[in-house]
Amino acid sequence: MFRYEIIKEEKDTGARLGRITTDHGVIETPIFMPVGTQATVKSMDTHDLKSLGARIILGNTYHLYLRPGEEIMKKAGGLHRFMNWDRPILTDSGGFQVFSLGDLRKITEEGVTFASHLDGSRHFMTPEKATHLQNVIGSDIMMCFDECAPADSDYDYTKKSMEMTTRWAKRCQDAHERPEDQALFGIVQGGMFEDLRAKSAADLSAMDFPGYAIGGLSVGEAKSTMYHLLDVTVPLLPREKPHYLMGVGSVDALFEGVIRGIDMFDCVLQTRIARNGTAMTSQGKVVVRNAPYQDDFSPLDPECDCYVCRNHTRAYLRHLIKCNEILGARLLTYHNLYFTLSLMEKIREAIKTDSLLALRDTIFQKYGIQKIGE
Amino acid sequence: MFRYEIIKEEKDTGARLGRITTDHGVIETPIFMPVGTQATVKSMDTHDLKSLGARIILGNTYHLYLRPGEEIMKKAGGLHRFMNWDRPILTDSGGFQVFSLGDLRKITEEGVTFASHLDGSRHFMTPEKATHLQNVIGSDIMMCFDECAPADSDYDYTKKSMEMTTRWAKRCQDAHERPEDQALFGIVQGGMFEDLRAKSAADLSAMDFPGYAIGGLSVGEAKSTMYHLLDVTVPLLPREKPHYLMGVGSVDALFEGVIRGIDMFDCVLQTRIARNGTAMTSQGKVVVRNAPYQDDFSPLDPECDCYVCRNHTRAYLRHLIKCNEILGARLLTYHNLYFTLSLMEKIREAIKTDSLLALRDTIFQKYGIQKIGE
Repeated sequence: MFRYEIIKEEKDTGARLGRITTDHGVIETPIFMPVGTQATVKSMDTHDLKSLGARIILGNTYHLYLRPGEEIMKKAGGLHRFMNWDRPILTDSGGFQVFSLGDLRKITEEGVTFASHLDGSRHFMTPEKATHLQNVIGSDIMMCFDECAPADSDYDYTKKSMEMTTRWAKRCQDAHERPEDQALFGIVQGGMFEDLRAKSAADLSAMDFPGYAIGGLSVGEAKSTMYHLLDVTVPLLPREKPHYLMGVGSVDALFEGVIRGIDMFDCVLQTRIARNGTAMTSQGKVVVRNAPYQDDFSPLDPECDCYVCRNHTRAYLRHLIKCNEILGARLLTYHNLYFTLSLMEKIREAIKTDSLLALRDTIFQKYGIQKIGE
Repeated sequence: MFRYEIIKEEKDTGARLGRITTDHGVIETPIFMPVGTQATVKSMDTHDLKSLGARIILGNTYHLYLRPGEEIMKKAGGLHRFMNWDRPILTDSGGFQVFSLGDLRKITEEGVTFASHLDGSRHFMTPEKATHLQNVIGSDIMMCFDECAPADSDYDYTKKSMEMTTRWAKRCQDAHERPEDQALFGIVQGGMFEDLRAKSAADLSAMDFPGYAIGGLSVGEAKSTMYHLLDVTVPLLPREKPHYLMGVGSVDALFEGVIRGIDMFDCVLQTRIARNGTAMTSQGKVVVRNAPYQDDFSPLDPECDCYVCRNHTRAYLRHLIKCNEILGARLLTYHNLYFTLSLMEKIREAIKTDSLLALRDTIFQKYGIQKIGE
């Protein structure tokens, strides 16, 4: 069972407050989804994720296909049981990872031959197989297998790629074994070309997916380009379906996405920079690894009430990161996810009270973000 | 304030049930102390440590001296505040680490010149400096700076080394700045030689330390040798002071130590093997990294009620370890510490009920341990 309802649209921007209902629980949107690539959000266990308020997390089909593999996933009874997470899960199709392999893969209409990044073993992935794997994983939200063309692809390549992605989407839809309890989303492609984005959105919309993702953005293009393509694309998606902007999670892009009608986001940024010693705070990024923090006994973020900010100092966190202690990665990950999930909560609240632009301006100013065009 | 009381001695063995009182709380003995080398028990935060029942943890003066260093430790107000741990802390003196450096150090009566394992920088450590550093760290229990002679040292070297360690112990005692709130323990050395162990124990006992450690064991010698040396040494230590066997924490040695009058243990074994994918369970060691566990959906230890065993399967833990996921190291660490702390609780209970030998036999049989001499 999958349902999306719009609760309210913000007065000034049309930003949507919504609610997604799945068999594993309800998600208030707009939402940020922590990424749990290999059946764990790196360094977090499911108790941590619940304590910081995560409502839905991501899994990566490509990684789970290689390890632990389909057989183990089947025997475990799916990813929820395997990792002991009883809230909703979204899986990507593996398309992005496969296409990131570069020379290690070969694309045909039928599917993609690729070499594992782990051991070089050869694999053949098709829309049908990616769908089947997600059926075995049992994610609440599945993604169509798509080609994510490189940002610098020319018009001709991008057009052919987008058209193939649409044909693959149909094959995924046809192969889907559990449509009653897993929602399969279509993915809009089309590179940096407005007309290709529009064509992709129109063709997929006609196929009546329960939700729509926008893929192939935040791949190196300017943020202004991404925002422009959202302006072009989102209005062409069915209004009554959730809109998911894939791989985007910076503070500015979360606001600009919501303002343009996006309901769902995911990004590895929060957890990746945490492991490198960078915190997202109300005053902007704090590279706590740096020397000035060695004797700073204040919390990471004076405005944050998370477990880490209530219990630990910048000096201690810097020490842990400098010593490559696991705990440093874990505490910063916890904080960054809490910061982002709290930000999304503020955004939902601002939609309710029709004050989203004011919130954006306040947060951008404190965070040190220049608005595009200023 | 530091106090040790004997609550009861076990009927058959004389094993001691005791209580240590410090400014940061009370510790029931015999106790196992998790090792927090660099101001963190690897992968655990202080909330984890409390949830698994740790009453006292270790810090390493050598590591804390190099990072974060004395100045930061002083500004932080000591290690308790630096790492946000309000229960007791014991620090070693750095002696063991410095002597482990091998060619990187040079020993004289005055102290030890050594090169940092981090950057090769030169340092000079003396009994006075090691004591001062521990005064700055503010540990509840401090250790004298000792020379831990290699296990294969000859009689002459070991004798001279032990005598110097005794002279250094006096210098530590004289240098101690906070005897009213930090207890400084003497460390018995003497290698594998009974008469040297006896001499060391006698000389240190005469100096009236608030507690006594036995160092230089579990450094490669046979377990039977270690047990024999405990038989020789422990009876020569003041009965009314706590006895601490340094660096020992295997299941068999915990029992054999307690039976011989040891009250305190520490060991990196639990946390180190955890990070390599090995669990300590009621049925013996489980190398969960191994292939047979890939589709084993039972808990790590069917008799354990820890968070990990209640929530996760061997198959999931194996997957995390195989993927080098931080969470794998963390969950196994949690379990191994819980297992060991629970074992010590069982041991304390068995002393109360005069059934320690029966408990030992039961646990050894299930764990697959041969009793020495059988």
